[in-house]
Amino acid sequence: MTSLLPAGWATDPAVLDARRLDRSGFDPGGRPRAVVFAESADEVAEVLRIANADGTPVVTRGAGTGLSGGAVATDGSIVLDLSRMSRIVEISATDELAVVEPGVITSDLDRAAGRYGLRYAPDPASVAISTIGGNIATNAGGLRCAKYGVTRDSVLGLDVVLADGRRVGTGRRTVKGVAGYDLTALFVGSEGTLGVIVGATVRLRPAPVRTATLAAFFPDFVAATTAAAAVTAARLQPAIAELLDRVCLDAIDDADGTALRARGAAFLLVQTDGPGADVEMDAVRAVVEPLSGDVEVTTDPVRAEALLATRRAALPALERHGRVLIEDVAVPRSRMADAVAAIEKIGVRSGIRIATMAHAGDGNLHPILVLDHGRAFDEDVWTAAGEVFTAALDLGGTLTGEHGVGLLKRRWLVDELGPDVVDLQRELKAVFDPNAILNPGKKV
Amino acid sequence: MTSLLPAGWATDPAVLDARRLDRSGFDPGGRPRAVVFAESADEVAEVLRIANADGTPVVTRGAGTGLSGGAVATDGSIVLDLSRMSRIVEISATDELAVVEPGVITSDLDRAAGRYGLRYAPDPASVAISTIGGNIATNAGGLRCAKYGVTRDSVLGLDVVLADGRRVGTGRRTVKGVAGYDLTALFVGSEGTLGVIVGATVRLRPAPVRTATLAAFFPDFVAATTAAAAVTAARLQPAIAELLDRVCLDAIDDADGTALRARGAAFLLVQTDGPGADVEMDAVRAVVEPLSGDVEVTTDPVRAEALLATRRAALPALERHGRVLIEDVAVPRSRMADAVAAIEKIGVRSGIRIATMAHAGDGNLHPILVLDHGRAFDEDVWTAAGEVFTAALDLGGTLTGEHGVGLLKRRWLVDELGPDVVDLQRELKAVFDPNAILNPGKKV
Ligand SMILES: Cc1cc2nc3c(=O)[nH]c(=O)nc-3n(C[C@H](O)[C@H](O)[C@H](O)COP(=O)(O)OP(=O)(O)OC[C@H]3O[C@@H](n4cnc5c(N)ncnc54)[C@H](O)[C@@H]3O)c2cc1C
Ligand SMILES: Cc1cc2nc3c(=O)[nH]c(=O)nc-3n(C[C@H](O)[C@H](O)[C@H](O)COP(=O)(O)OP(=O)(O)OC[C@H]3O[C@@H](n4cnc5c(N)ncnc54)[C@H](O)[C@@H]3O)c2cc1C
Repeated sequence: MTSLLPAGWATDPAVLDARRLDRSGFDPGGRPRAVVFAESADEVAEVLRIANADGTPVVTRGAGTGLSGGAVATDGSIVLDLSRMSRIVEISATDELAVVEPGVITSDLDRAAGRYGLRYAPDPASVAISTIGGNIATNAGGLRCAKYGVTRDSVLGLDVVLADGRRVGTGRRTVKGVAGYDLTALFVGSEGTLGVIVGATVRLRPAPVRTATLAAFFPDFVAATTAAAAVTAARLQPAIAELLDRVCLDAIDDADGTALRARGAAFLLVQTDGPGADVEMDAVRAVVEPLSGDVEVTTDPVRAEALLATRRAALPALERHGRVLIEDVAVPRSRMADAVAAIEKIGVRSGIRIATMAHAGDGNLHPILVLDHGRAFDEDVWTAAGEVFTAALDLGGTLTGEHGVGLLKRRWLVDELGPDVVDLQRELKAVFDPNAILNPGKKV
Repeated sequence: MTSLLPAGWATDPAVLDARRLDRSGFDPGGRPRAVVFAESADEVAEVLRIANADGTPVVTRGAGTGLSGGAVATDGSIVLDLSRMSRIVEISATDELAVVEPGVITSDLDRAAGRYGLRYAPDPASVAISTIGGNIATNAGGLRCAKYGVTRDSVLGLDVVLADGRRVGTGRRTVKGVAGYDLTALFVGSEGTLGVIVGATVRLRPAPVRTATLAAFFPDFVAATTAAAAVTAARLQPAIAELLDRVCLDAIDDADGTALRARGAAFLLVQTDGPGADVEMDAVRAVVEPLSGDVEVTTDPVRAEALLATRRAALPALERHGRVLIEDVAVPRSRMADAVAAIEKIGVRSGIRIATMAHAGDGNLHPILVLDHGRAFDEDVWTAAGEVFTAALDLGGTLTGEHGVGLLKRRWLVDELGPDVVDLQRELKAVFDPNAILNPGKKV
């Protein structure tokens, strides 16, 4: 059957192996039968027609940086690698939009937009290594989404190949439009289970004329959470509001030789942007300062970038300490402190070290289970992860704020959605993919 | 069968007649068999179970202010009027959200949020007379959506009764979440064809600390459009950018005794908001002033409200001049001037007076066909309307930016979406409403 595939396929074990897993650290042991490096929408359509005819599973893959097992290859599947479809087809400064192929690296698009005084707002911490197609398929969040929304809020239209090889366009080049049901939103976050995204029209926004950045240290994580909540309560709208706990700061100090822990046991980073950045920062500072002994504010972009780098250094630093299982719960902002307390309790009970970082602006917490090197994701690990999910749901939250369901969270999905909604989701999936070839076993 | 209905139904012809049509002015002549004034989700579920069992069409109705015939009653249908479900269940200042019943009048929610320094951002010009449920079901836009997005961007979760009477929750109380497909977005804009929205969790945003408002007059509409485009090109992000043409200004002068036409033949209104409102307005003014002979800027909220009232006065003023057919096309912002030229040509060819107002910030134009009083929507009128749609599609736009497809635009829908997407939409509809009882003949 592979002989029918379009040019650019491989069955070489080394090539297969390099595209078999993602960054979740989860390996269920499946082996793909081939990888296709598609170079055009037509090739994607050809692959899907062939696979659909004989029921071969197709696992679409961007850069494989996903953290929920979404791009992990099923046994006997074709891995459809889109990294070669990496053209920025158009940037329209007048319409403030770009048309891109799915394999474009997110920061490449942002940089290209920058030449027109624009930017692509969604900025997952993986912005330099993940693809726009993967971002759309997971509805990726990021630091700036406190103010600018998640990937969905920047997608105007999609070019999609359906399971049977038909190619459809959804959405439009206009900012607004209500003709037909919102298929664009349905494909965003669908994790490769409804269709293959072969093109996207995305919104660009004016790059901010100014930013102001605050870094504050606190005696404990609850105090930092309280400060973040106070910023919201003051009706301010920062572009970024990020939290790191003691475990994160320890790991960064170990890895980078910094001395963050000497300054406190929790870290809050707030950035305001736009023409009112300074005025807004004054208000942020007035709220945060009384709660923290150590506040720094800068309007220097270089210093701001260094502070942001501290936030981004946390995950790699933790990865040096052991194998990580990265969770991604979100709770209503008012319950952040409760979530932190619950996570700490789960750490104590399970004996597993849990680091927590959070997008405080939208209540999205990443509790990171740090396992000893070599330890598998055993049942004790899943039990602790399950307790984190249950705690988030009990607080009125969700299993996954931005990383997706993938393979890792499927068994808890019904706890959040309930059986009726899960049934509806399955029926929707069947409309788009009646032979269930698209990323089977993921998402729903 | 009506005898089975829950309390609060009527078959009195006067009551039926008052709930048979909407504000589109379109009357296909159908007569409902009953109106139910539901007071709870349970009553809604009961009505749907009864209707679903024997295939009776159900037309859900908020305030009936729709402009596309979405709430126009089908012959023999039950009209499900939700205006009595008008409780604001909760406002959470900490989580910046509200939980509401569908019959809440939009401005009532906005006012209630105001007590906490918050606001409900989407503000259709009908904000004082339409319901949140209707706004969600049409994905209503408004003046502020240039900056704050459309209704979809403010809906976090929904409480929906499905056609068979099952009740499901979609979305969540958190800002972010990707568990399952985005059913919330699917119900937003579904115009009563997929389920009945019996509750919503909506996002509130900080009320802006300051606004600055500019009103400018121009010698012609193209000059005003150019000025609006120049604001975008300067990478500014106003909250509001509205345009009125000569026909609108004439009508307002006639109705209100003003002398707007003495100042110019086109009107542009721009509002900036937030802590940087003044700085941003200085930049807007610098761009607009060279293109207009008559610019006024104010930071006085009372004067700003008067300028906004000018914009809102346009539609009622036109309605005094004749019967109106209100179109709602959107085009990429770069094509606004082309759209205006095309609309003018259609006016000349058809001999129908066409007024145009536009949400310039997002390329959404409302060409308003003003017919002599008493003239029906005859084939010549539909031909002209069809030419407007075709022009918008030719410019890369859409049939409907915010008012919905309803009855009025169905025959052109396939021109925009193509047959494959229309098929998919029908299959989605069948998943939610297999007996096709929900608002049959609308939307898809
Ligand atoms: C260091 C690090 C930091 C991260 N930070 C963030 C963060 O801040 N926020 C966040 O949301 N995520 C973050 N992630 C997770 C990850 O980067 C995102 O989920 C990203 O969107 C995945 O993009 P990708 O191209 O790597 O997709 P992949 O991992 O290749 O695929 C992800 C899913 O999308 C599907 N898919 C990919 N491309 C397509 C397509 N064209 N059509 C259809 N389906 C497709 C796959 O089948 C899979 O289900 C981070 C990851 C790392 C390693
Ligand atoms: C003067 C004026 C100005 C306007 N300005 C704007 C504007 O700026 N922007 C804009 O977008 N629109 C505008 N409109 C149009 C209209 O107000 C909107 O479409 C509004 O959202 C309709 O709300 P409603 O409660 O009147 O809904 P209705 O007209 O009663 O219903 C509209 C549609 O929604 C469905 N529906 C209603 N409630 C529910 C529910 N709870 N569950 C499921 N389906 C439901 C109905 O079946 C129908 O298909 C304007 C109208 C007028 C008269």
